[in-house]
Amino acid sequence: MRLGDIAARIGAAIEGDPDLEIAELQPLDQAGPGALSFLANPRYAHLLPASQASAVILAPGVTGPGCAVLRCDDPYRAFGQATALFVREVAPEEGIDVTAAVHPEARIGPGARIGPLAVVGAGATVGARTVLHPGVVIYPGASLGEDCVLHAHAVVREGVTIGSRVVLGAGTVLGSEGFGYLPLPGGGIVRLPQIGCVVVEDDVEIGANTTIDRAAIGATRVGRGSKIDNLVMVAHGCRVEEEVLIAAQTGLAGSTQVGARTQLGGQVGTAGHLRIGADTRVGAKAGVASDVSEGVTVAGFPAIDVALWRRAMVALRRLPELLRRVQRIERALGTLVDPKLPPER
Amino acid sequence: MRLGDIAARIGAAIEGDPDLEIAELQPLDQAGPGALSFLANPRYAHLLPASQASAVILAPGVTGPGCAVLRCDDPYRAFGQATALFVREVAPEEGIDVTAAVHPEARIGPGARIGPLAVVGAGATVGARTVLHPGVVIYPGASLGEDCVLHAHAVVREGVTIGSRVVLGAGTVLGSEGFGYLPLPGGGIVRLPQIGCVVVEDDVEIGANTTIDRAAIGATRVGRGSKIDNLVMVAHGCRVEEEVLIAAQTGLAGSTQVGARTQLGGQVGTAGHLRIGADTRVGAKAGVASDVSEGVTVAGFPAIDVALWRRAMVALRRLPELLRRVQRIERALGTLVDPKLPPER
Amino acid sequence: MRLGDIAARIGAAIEGDPDLEIAELQPLDQAGPGALSFLANPRYAHLLPASQASAVILAPGVTGPGCAVLRCDDPYRAFGQATALFVREVAPEEGIDVTAAVHPEARIGPGARIGPLAVVGAGATVGARTVLHPGVVIYPGASLGEDCVLHAHAVVREGVTIGSRVVLGAGTVLGSEGFGYLPLPGGGIVRLPQIGCVVVEDDVEIGANTTIDRAAIGATRVGRGSKIDNLVMVAHGCRVEEEVLIAAQTGLAGSTQVGARTQLGGQVGTAGHLRIGADTRVGAKAGVASDVSEGVTVAGFPAIDVALWRRAMVALRRLPELLRRVQRIERALGTLVDPKLPPER
Repeated sequence: MRLGDIAARIGAAIEGDPDLEIAELQPLDQAGPGALSFLANPRYAHLLPASQASAVILAPGVTGPGCAVLRCDDPYRAFGQATALFVREVAPEEGIDVTAAVHPEARIGPGARIGPLAVVGAGATVGARTVLHPGVVIYPGASLGEDCVLHAHAVVREGVTIGSRVVLGAGTVLGSEGFGYLPLPGGGIVRLPQIGCVVVEDDVEIGANTTIDRAAIGATRVGRGSKIDNLVMVAHGCRVEEEVLIAAQTGLAGSTQVGARTQLGGQVGTAGHLRIGADTRVGAKAGVASDVSEGVTVAGFPAIDVALWRRAMVALRRLPELLRRVQRIERALGTLVDPKLPPER
Repeated sequence: MRLGDIAARIGAAIEGDPDLEIAELQPLDQAGPGALSFLANPRYAHLLPASQASAVILAPGVTGPGCAVLRCDDPYRAFGQATALFVREVAPEEGIDVTAAVHPEARIGPGARIGPLAVVGAGATVGARTVLHPGVVIYPGASLGEDCVLHAHAVVREGVTIGSRVVLGAGTVLGSEGFGYLPLPGGGIVRLPQIGCVVVEDDVEIGANTTIDRAAIGATRVGRGSKIDNLVMVAHGCRVEEEVLIAAQTGLAGSTQVGARTQLGGQVGTAGHLRIGADTRVGAKAGVASDVSEGVTVAGFPAIDVALWRRAMVALRRLPELLRRVQRIERALGTLVDPKLPPER
Repeated sequence: MRLGDIAARIGAAIEGDPDLEIAELQPLDQAGPGALSFLANPRYAHLLPASQASAVILAPGVTGPGCAVLRCDDPYRAFGQATALFVREVAPEEGIDVTAAVHPEARIGPGARIGPLAVVGAGATVGARTVLHPGVVIYPGASLGEDCVLHAHAVVREGVTIGSRVVLGAGTVLGSEGFGYLPLPGGGIVRLPQIGCVVVEDDVEIGANTTIDRAAIGATRVGRGSKIDNLVMVAHGCRVEEEVLIAAQTGLAGSTQVGARTQLGGQVGTAGHLRIGADTRVGAKAGVASDVSEGVTVAGFPAIDVALWRRAMVALRRLPELLRRVQRIERALGTLVDPKLPPER
């Protein structure tokens, strides 16, 4: 692709030869001749002078390494737009592969691509142009919208409803039974049947090997446009609202609510039956034990205001020393300190 | 189903029309006409007055929203019993699906249901009435008891023995190699072969995408009636005793022992070669670094008595302030505080 | 196998009958007649006297329970060598199973074993003697070296390159899209296309249900000889160098670098764009928030020097008491302590 064409598509000013041929996109330190690269995170600025890239996307005022430059205000976003020009989609052939097991009572929309060894159960619906990669299993009665992409071995259990333009990563499971058990005082464990469903709205994208459980009753819901990473657990009865971002290995316990546009870092855990407000940020590895207000940023275990958590963590390193200092003070004061003073509230 | 029939089956007293037809069960805020709902967790009491449910299961003394009421002492458990009346099992046809790959030397019990594209290896045993959903893989020589249900893509490796009435969620893997490696002082890593097995006893239920590794030698064991959630890791040589509950994303390092009836919250981690006693509770996200006694409750990282952990966490928020207070005291006391005092033991 | 033969193979001195027949290897407390056992971890020394094993591997100076003894300096390693003598590999037949879906344009090396219902896409390469267990999916264009073993349902996406002697556990996914999204200030989320690849070098072994994402651009890389456990997440653009050990459920955020021979415990999390030096150890459940130097040991959340973390955690339990002690001191000193003193730096 010509550099000039890329510049036009991403809205960048060009400094150099517009006829330069760009074959691939690479990071600064892996780029060679024919590669376009970019600098957005200042952490990588030291890689710029020695980069062998043929062209680089840079913010105003940043000096390039001598190669062609595409100049724009937001190099990260511009690079994202450029990568979109180089995407090569891999998909099974249109129609139903001869090795797939599609039940005669399943409904398959026009233009769908049902790959090798995929399974679609009785009464299930696969919308127009939806792609099932090899080994995908759609249980009886499940429903998928249009233009979805399900990667290898994704599993959609009975009673799950998926909107349009939804992407499921390989090995992801939707609609597994919620973890509902009641230990009895006298011994034994009663299973609480999970007869609810899962609803995944339009434009949701979910990574690989993630699991979303069906509700005990009602629905576990993932709202329009939300994006969920790999190995995430969404338990029964959760409600994830619109445009939420959830990073890898995070777990939402039963009936957690996550407000719109909220971002959860990786390995976050939430206790059940709580609400995290809209437009909130939860730092990686945080343990959320109670409701979180709208628009705040929390971190830590248990999760508290992020600034307080950071100060507390810095102070924690000095705690052993602090214990010794207080002991010295007590020895210096001797009997002046009354040990029978009531505890502080 | 008639409301009167439901009342009789769950042992509740009926306040209203026993001929009322109940079509589904729903949470208070999603219930409409024809739906039965319940109130057990006081957190949701505010939803009761406006509920559109046709009937509600309530504890004695709780006022309903004007609809029919099923009155009983334990609404949560009664609702669990009611949901059992509405379960609709989805399963492949009886027999072996034509697309399944069952080795001629496998033993398949009467009434078993081997779904599309399931694989059963040489010498493997599948007990009577056991259900393999699409894509399940049973390696050669593995053994499954009667009335088990294995969901799509569950994998049972060679040498694994599973009892009766066991449920495996989609994508769960039993019998993967334990993580046994020995880095050599002079460089290089030696693999320690994992020649043990996995034994899963009767009535165990395991969620989706969980992994249980085979022992290096001997057995990794999950005891009768234990329930394990999604994305859990049970490493080689662990022994989980009877009726243990393990929530999602928890990981047991090698040779961990978990006593009977113990409950582990989500995202718990345990160091290896330790024992958690029976009837113990471990709070979510706890990091268990040493043995835990029987019957206690621990929490935190590292895990300690739950009450102490909670007090410490409240105090932690005041730690930055405490540092300043101690500094003020030291300044006030000046040379009275001897900096050469030996450290506290 | 004769005890004398085992002794010769593992380089141990024999105390007892070299003609003793050994049928299996077992832990001390599960061993019976015909079993060989070992004692390496002193934690299990109490099991030695009552063991029913026919022979035991022991370090010099350790008294056996009366049975035959194989004496050597490193019983743990010697036992590992002994287990290697008892490994029985299970693998599909040589060639391509009739139920597998191998694209005519795929290249399958000599001696490869393509199991039932495995899928190999157009232009993909499977090296000589490589084993695909049932249900493995190789996307179009992916490349596997020689003598690899991929367990059931492992998924290798397009653009992934795997070296030789690589082992993938069941359900593991290589090459899933990186989690790259940009929330826009005015609402909406832009997907950043992930057009990079994954490179897994020779002798890497990866457990079950782990996920390794493709880079946005360039490569996510796992270096020669590294071993990765189950349910691990390696995000886009990470670089894991040679002979790294990563325990279960650990997650590396985007562009994390892990130096050679470093060991990460289970459930570790790292923030993105940081470097953990070579020969470093990171304790289980640690949260690594910034660069870690070469050769150190860190632990905790946030991760700090392990000795400091341990002291801080011991001190933490005394923090509630410390708050009370400081309050007593302040009351004793009264107005001597100036509340207007500026905060400590």
